[in-house]
Amino acid sequence: MTDVRPGAGRTPSRAVEQALVDAAERVLVRDGLGAVTVRAVATEAGVAPMGVYNRFGSKDGLIAAVLVRGFDGLRGAVTADDDADPLARLLASGRNYRLFALDRPQHYGAMFGGRPLPTEGADELVAAATAAFEALVGHVRYAMARGALRDGDPVEAAQVIWSSVHGAVSLELGGAVLTPDPSATYETLLRMLLAGLA
Amino acid sequence: MTDVRPGAGRTPSRAVEQALVDAAERVLVRDGLGAVTVRAVATEAGVAPMGVYNRFGSKDGLIAAVLVRGFDGLRGAVTADDDADPLARLLASGRNYRLFALDRPQHYGAMFGGRPLPTEGADELVAAATAAFEALVGHVRYAMARGALRDGDPVEAAQVIWSSVHGAVSLELGGAVLTPDPSATYETLLRMLLAGLA
Repeated sequence: MTDVRPGAGRTPSRAVEQALVDAAERVLVRDGLGAVTVRAVATEAGVAPMGVYNRFGSKDGLIAAVLVRGFDGLRGAVTADDDADPLARLLASGRNYRLFALDRPQHYGAMFGGRPLPTEGADELVAAATAAFEALVGHVRYAMARGALRDGDPVEAAQVIWSSVHGAVSLELGGAVLTPDPSATYETLLRMLLAGLA
Repeated sequence: MTDVRPGAGRTPSRAVEQALVDAAERVLVRDGLGAVTVRAVATEAGVAPMGVYNRFGSKDGLIAAVLVRGFDGLRGAVTADDDADPLARLLASGRNYRLFALDRPQHYGAMFGGRPLPTEGADELVAAATAAFEALVGHVRYAMARGALRDGDPVEAAQVIWSSVHGAVSLELGGAVLTPDPSATYETLLRMLLAGLA
């Protein structure tokens, strides 16, 4: 366990917060979103529950901090490959989206599982989620500007792409891909998207 | 409340079962999937809990019966329009898929929410879900045979279509469509799908 007791005195406040979010992520991955409570995270981090309340206000604030980290990671995955070729960039972005979800299914489920998002810490959460979506919009604009996708509303095209990859990833995580090779079917989906938007 | 007490003696067994599934659907729509318990459904239907256990074996069996009805309804929605024009048929099917989900969000969430499906009554459930998917595969075959979609694996093409519409519908139900008119964006998605698979 990381020692993040406020009483230790020498750990800067930001580092304590990060250690608590680390602990919350471990609980999420190990036991699921329902298990992410102030008490469980305090135990995981080796601090008193009040140490969590003081920093995050509530369980919702704690979950929001975990989701912010999730959306930051997703934005990173979507922007990791900045190939100059616009279609190669979109393909890489789409592949990385899937890999992010397969690598962090509990995070993905918490981010997009359809449960109401926490209201505590909501501003930072909305900003992080918006930044991840904007990364995709940026790729679409880049492709439209170079004629690789036909001209149109980049936000709508990005929404259509996101819908499709989100659906594919959700079905795969739920074990509902009925073709023998989900990875190949996902590749077919990405190429269908680019052809349909070209 | 419908009187489905087994003691009433004159209600045929199948009708009693249907009345219990009716009651379970009312609980699902009103209170969510988590509220669909043997006790709650028995109360809703005005029978003793044993009357539910005797017919469905468990809460899982009861939920499976509700989901079977959901998949039957989805199959009906997807096949409702059998326009002779293959692309018109696929478009109608896609539109009806969305309308089904918007009309019955609790059913849709229970069918595709990523929770493990019940094992009790699983055979009938898998059959109903497969039949709904096969209805889409049938539309794809029909379109491929007429050259409206390019030749290929109809199951893979159906999976790609299903991924996309499922993703769009899930994001819409979750309030995560970032364009001003979800219906118009869904229409764009359907036309993108058909263009990408043509």
